[in-house]
Amino acid sequence: MAVYFATGNKNKFIEMKSYLKDIDVRHYEFRHKEIRSDSIEEIAREAVDAAYSEVKKPVFVEDTGLFIESLNGFPGTYSGWVYEKIGAEGLVRLMRGEKNRSAVFKTCIAYRSGKKVLTFSGECRGSISEKILGKAGFGYDPVFIPEGHVQSFAQSINLKNKLSHRYKTSEKFRRYLLKSEAI
Amino acid sequence: MAVYFATGNKNKFIEMKSYLKDIDVRHYEFRHKEIRSDSIEEIAREAVDAAYSEVKKPVFVEDTGLFIESLNGFPGTYSGWVYEKIGAEGLVRLMRGEKNRSAVFKTCIAYRSGKKVLTFSGECRGSISEKILGKAGFGYDPVFIPEGHVQSFAQSINLKNKLSHRYKTSEKFRRYLLKSEAI
Repeated sequence: MAVYFATGNKNKFIEMKSYLKDIDVRHYEFRHKEIRSDSIEEIAREAVDAAYSEVKKPVFVEDTGLFIESLNGFPGTYSGWVYEKIGAEGLVRLMRGEKNRSAVFKTCIAYRSGKKVLTFSGECRGSISEKILGKAGFGYDPVFIPEGHVQSFAQSINLKNKLSHRYKTSEKFRRYLLKSEAI
Repeated sequence: MAVYFATGNKNKFIEMKSYLKDIDVRHYEFRHKEIRSDSIEEIAREAVDAAYSEVKKPVFVEDTGLFIESLNGFPGTYSGWVYEKIGAEGLVRLMRGEKNRSAVFKTCIAYRSGKKVLTFSGECRGSISEKILGKAGFGYDPVFIPEGHVQSFAQSINLKNKLSHRYKTSEKFRRYLLKSEAI
């Protein structure tokens, strides 16, 4: 059975489809005004309800945020909007001279195939680099170095595809789908 | 007749009350999840409907954003949230080395006393300073220098109270209230 991924972000769809390789994932072009909240789970739950009311078939959404410790969790649940405005370079400027460079990427997938919403979460700890590093990936990948490594996600896509918040979350979701009766 | 100002921001209430000096303005403590939008008018319209459904008396809300040209309008309609995270200092860091320092403060008041929503808008053009200047006011006042002046709003509250986006908007609203039959 097909599962729809409701998103307006083509990059996320391509990445997610590669993670959920043995699942029949289809793209549902979704334009939705997310609620304002500091919780990616709350945002994902609300969004999947809206998506389900349109698609009326098994559907999931994904929300991701980058939370920087010394910036009180900025850009957090507004990561996508902030990226459009100031880019990854903006984060580098904001963090100039800052010693505490800790950050965490968090992803939540919310899935709905009937009345209930299921959520799956994952995160990846790391730090913000002092400059743009690499060109692969998208979004904040060039400034995020996962814990225990020296390269950014944008310098090593293999690293990203093994360690990332989105990979970890999609793995939990994939395992659920494979053992659930729905698929 | 009393008019309620629905806001969770005490500073805004104090400032607005001083501007609307001959109006019976009362504070309605309002916690509301604003919609995500790049239009302060759209945000204010939605919020005043929510406030009216609680207060059921003439009520207004105010939404203000600081739009910085070289940052594609950042922090814009998320100004309050961005301020909580990175403060006025964050804008100074983001703008370091940037020659185009143009910015505009925009305010929209949305008022509802019956079925219809009325809106009043005003703006103040200026530039972002290269460092924190002054301690008066609140929010981004220490980094905003109005056009044609050299002091920031936080260095000259008299300047702010004659030129600001919020003052201009409240004057339009005040004149409307004074001539409308409702007051």
